[in-house]
Amino acid sequence: MAYEYKTKRMVEFADTDMAGILHFSNYFRFMESVEHAFFRSLGLSVHPHSQTGIWGWARGEAECRYERPLRYEETVDLHLRVAAKGSKSITYEVTFVLDGERVAFGSMTVICVARGEEPGTLRSMTIPAEVADLIDVAPTDGD
Amino acid sequence: MAYEYKTKRMVEFADTDMAGILHFSNYFRFMESVEHAFFRSLGLSVHPHSQTGIWGWARGEAECRYERPLRYEETVDLHLRVAAKGSKSITYEVTFVLDGERVAFGSMTVICVARGEEPGTLRSMTIPAEVADLIDVAPTDGD
Amino acid sequence: MAYEYKTKRMVEFADTDMAGILHFSNYFRFMESVEHAFFRSLGLSVHPHSQTGIWGWARGEAECRYERPLRYEETVDLHLRVAAKGSKSITYEVTFVLDGERVAFGSMTVICVARGEEPGTLRSMTIPAEVADLIDVAPTDGD
Amino acid sequence: MAYEYKTKRMVEFADTDMAGILHFSNYFRFMESVEHAFFRSLGLSVHPHSQTGIWGWARGEAECRYERPLRYEETVDLHLRVAAKGSKSITYEVTFVLDGERVAFGSMTVICVARGEEPGTLRSMTIPAEVADLIDVAPTDGD
Repeated sequence: MAYEYKTKRMVEFADTDMAGILHFSNYFRFMESVEHAFFRSLGLSVHPHSQTGIWGWARGEAECRYERPLRYEETVDLHLRVAAKGSKSITYEVTFVLDGERVAFGSMTVICVARGEEPGTLRSMTIPAEVADLIDVAPTDGD
Repeated sequence: MAYEYKTKRMVEFADTDMAGILHFSNYFRFMESVEHAFFRSLGLSVHPHSQTGIWGWARGEAECRYERPLRYEETVDLHLRVAAKGSKSITYEVTFVLDGERVAFGSMTVICVARGEEPGTLRSMTIPAEVADLIDVAPTDGD
Repeated sequence: MAYEYKTKRMVEFADTDMAGILHFSNYFRFMESVEHAFFRSLGLSVHPHSQTGIWGWARGEAECRYERPLRYEETVDLHLRVAAKGSKSITYEVTFVLDGERVAFGSMTVICVARGEEPGTLRSMTIPAEVADLIDVAPTDGD
Repeated sequence: MAYEYKTKRMVEFADTDMAGILHFSNYFRFMESVEHAFFRSLGLSVHPHSQTGIWGWARGEAECRYERPLRYEETVDLHLRVAAKGSKSITYEVTFVLDGERVAFGSMTVICVARGEEPGTLRSMTIPAEVADLIDVAPTDGD
């Protein structure tokens, strides 16, 4: 029945670029972090068997809208919600909030995949029931 | 009159993750690289005055669809096209091609910004004419 | 009189590489994080005026010995000690410990620098007394 | 008989930090890139079987001295030399040169490792003869 997760993260020096702000690619790393923290909160690991593992989650699509820059040492609230759940995929939305104000909004669709024999080959698969049963779609009354 | 740019980039070891593929956040770094190379090809710099500079380009939105993984030492063709140009923003599309097959497709809308007196503060501004005049919107006959 | 600082950090997915372990360059990012956390613990900021700032810390030398790999979702203890303090520089040592066992050992010498008028130009300077007074060299009875 | 390799690399925007310069951790990524390019120049791959592979190179130690910052869009010459070769390890030195002037100097000792059954486990091994035969120690007449 879990459909959301909240955490915080501070912008580190190595996350910034010469414009003095969090580099835009790093919002996606923050989004992935909160997704993985959500999984851990359910007692799951995102990569249950790591290298030799049978399955995991590939990115199908990722998007972010940037509304206000984030700077070094600012701590951002990350609010993840499950926006959609299919038989083989999950769509997450992540709201970035600083001092109560939304500063960015992202989404990611992740696809459940089995790893092929060849390294780096992936094949979509049905989300295992014991995982799918733990994850629910968030109510749609806004964020 | 320039509206596209093509380059290549090899996936480096440090670009990969434990799934054995190019980490999804790094597609955005590749997209930024080709945007900057496009600017250099026009005799421009993306960050004309760098730290003390008056203006630059902030990301307004960025998106990527992942269709097939990219692996270590694979060299991907990057094809950037100008999809839209406003008075204050440009939208780029970047097609990732491996061995003639599209493996990912991204877009970024960048906003022309002046840097405020406070570090990390940004304010949108009209694209300088000498820059805007060099950039055109790509014809829409597919990619 | 502060000369050490301890914190923890979990290896994130984006920190790993295709060998399935924390990428060796990221140990330096972890080392920088703990240095900055040490500064915050003293009520200081490493980059007091950020972009427009007058001074900061440049890296003079950085080194790491890798004794055992670190893997995804492992949480490493980071133990920073001030190994030396000069008029213009500080040398830190960082011990990486997993489950009570040392897995890596790094050091960094950082140089107090004023930022020149040209972006990216730096000039060494004496550490401000109000900063130097807060930092002491750690006793040498091993780690 | 190969003992050196030279290449060039431009500092990308995403490689910089808020100090307006190449982040110090990224010098290690540049060093790894030139090591891998050296291997490719010998007809070898650094990770011959990637994920499922039997062997590769772990970092034993890495070090860098920073003499002058590198900035966005600067192209640095990277000069790799084989400083030492043991039965199980190689030590590389990498000189970073900008406009004919040395700006940084790094070294890395890499250890030939077999990958264990457990993900992320590594065990040192003798460098395969067909690889070791291609690599020689550079003459010591300075750099």
